[in-house]
Amino acid sequence: MEIGEIGEIDLIDKIARETKIDRTVLKGIGDDTAVLKYSNKEYLLFTTDMLLEGVHFTHLRPRGASKVRLFYNIGWKSLACSISDIAAMGGIPQYCLVSLGLPPNLELDSLEQLYSGIKTIARKFKINVVGGDTIKSRRLIINIALLGKVLKQKLVLRSGAREGDVILVTGVLGGSISEKNLNFTPRLKEAQYLVNNFKIHSMIDISDGLILDLWRILKQSRKGAKIFLEKIPISAAAKRGKGDLKKALYGGEDFELLFTASKRTAQKIAAQKLARIIGEINDRRNIIESSDGRKLRINGYRHF
Amino acid sequence: MEIGEIGEIDLIDKIARETKIDRTVLKGIGDDTAVLKYSNKEYLLFTTDMLLEGVHFTHLRPRGASKVRLFYNIGWKSLACSISDIAAMGGIPQYCLVSLGLPPNLELDSLEQLYSGIKTIARKFKINVVGGDTIKSRRLIINIALLGKVLKQKLVLRSGAREGDVILVTGVLGGSISEKNLNFTPRLKEAQYLVNNFKIHSMIDISDGLILDLWRILKQSRKGAKIFLEKIPISAAAKRGKGDLKKALYGGEDFELLFTASKRTAQKIAAQKLARIIGEINDRRNIIESSDGRKLRINGYRHF
Repeated sequence: MEIGEIGEIDLIDKIARETKIDRTVLKGIGDDTAVLKYSNKEYLLFTTDMLLEGVHFTHLRPRGASKVRLFYNIGWKSLACSISDIAAMGGIPQYCLVSLGLPPNLELDSLEQLYSGIKTIARKFKINVVGGDTIKSRRLIINIALLGKVLKQKLVLRSGAREGDVILVTGVLGGSISEKNLNFTPRLKEAQYLVNNFKIHSMIDISDGLILDLWRILKQSRKGAKIFLEKIPISAAAKRGKGDLKKALYGGEDFELLFTASKRTAQKIAAQKLARIIGEINDRRNIIESSDGRKLRINGYRHF
Repeated sequence: MEIGEIGEIDLIDKIARETKIDRTVLKGIGDDTAVLKYSNKEYLLFTTDMLLEGVHFTHLRPRGASKVRLFYNIGWKSLACSISDIAAMGGIPQYCLVSLGLPPNLELDSLEQLYSGIKTIARKFKINVVGGDTIKSRRLIINIALLGKVLKQKLVLRSGAREGDVILVTGVLGGSISEKNLNFTPRLKEAQYLVNNFKIHSMIDISDGLILDLWRILKQSRKGAKIFLEKIPISAAAKRGKGDLKKALYGGEDFELLFTASKRTAQKIAAQKLARIIGEINDRRNIIESSDGRKLRINGYRHF
């Protein structure tokens, strides 16, 4: 049996089940980041993302801007993905390590643009780039390891969704077919505002599509969801082509925040236009259905 | 200009110079791991290593044991490299993230062996594997991010070598031409014993060859060194072929500890057979010479 035949989710589950963790690990595998005991007031958040030429970015080159801009955007995105993970936990990113696999024929100018993208987003979000590893590779590889912190009472997990919660999403969805998924701004400011002003029960960043990431909340929370399809905010980019709702539901890499809160809290958040209400949590475990009771297919971007 | 034309060390220097860090970063780029302020008593240590098929391991397949054992050893080594980095700072590893780029045609059995290698060494060194990222890749890629801690007074940097210090090394060198570099045991126990019982001034793990890694200590400490070539401990594996001293000086991946201490301390350490005395530190900045005053070529394993 080859690994192409089993799913990524199964792979991750396999590691999670078999990896022993001690009591300083509050949350290991199964959330956006690991949560580690740290001090009386704070937890450490620890996450990693790998980006690979040919998987995450090369295919966009023909559509995108100049080659130089492409490398800047790749650098930006590599760190943006991890920042988005820490944001979705209610945390603040602080330190990052950058591992690079570099093709020897990569032009120095492209490499400088790559660094420039990483350093620009690092500066914007006050993250220290504290080291890394550099090896030779046939294809460009970037791995980011990001360390952050969260005040204990602000931590939001995937597993906190409650029956009767309302589901909300920031921004608009389905935009990842455009260039957005290379130069998006992680919703750190928005996430901080939410956790500092409201009681958020569960949260995730949409990296693999609304439905798949909602399913991850449901799985960890042991709940189900009803989605108001007509309320899904669809991006202008998605509206330009066919199948706009499908793109908004199943397209990956929107990097908006998907979260749940009590009905009363959700109404306050929606009134302030911080996010839109798109559904509600029920007890139909792992099932996502539309308002008229049709079950929605659980799918999204998967690597295997 | 392509990056194949400039050195890895220049690349790393380039990032180090241009990356702004705040005052919570005690040591960023330029040591085995980053050192971050943490609590009153401890620092956090944060490091990463990337291993790539075709660079770090494929070429060994013909020499090695069975294919299954190979994947176990690759998993073991990927984490062992980072443990060795934290050991060389006087620290203790605690949490790791594993990013995998997996070829879809990789056999499930090979993947299980890879995990088994990672988990076995993690268990041996009491490290929690707390998450990771899994993507599809043409070649196998493993990136480890490892987080650890060190008591403030036990921290050992590359930059601490003093004029008159004696240079010591654990174990024997030149063994990386054999299979050792896939299944070595990081010198964590030895490093802990050293920092807990002696005042070690500077330390590094030998990952790219004795001379190149000694040069790194000299560079950070702004010192020079005299090496007693006849005192270099050479492995039995290196002695079997020609050029055994050359292998011991310039062969990479021995993963022994190279460190400096006062003459008095060094004599105590040598008397206990914990390490061998192989040279001394002087003020001839960045120069490594033999007892008879010949300058040694600064070289070792470099990726570019």
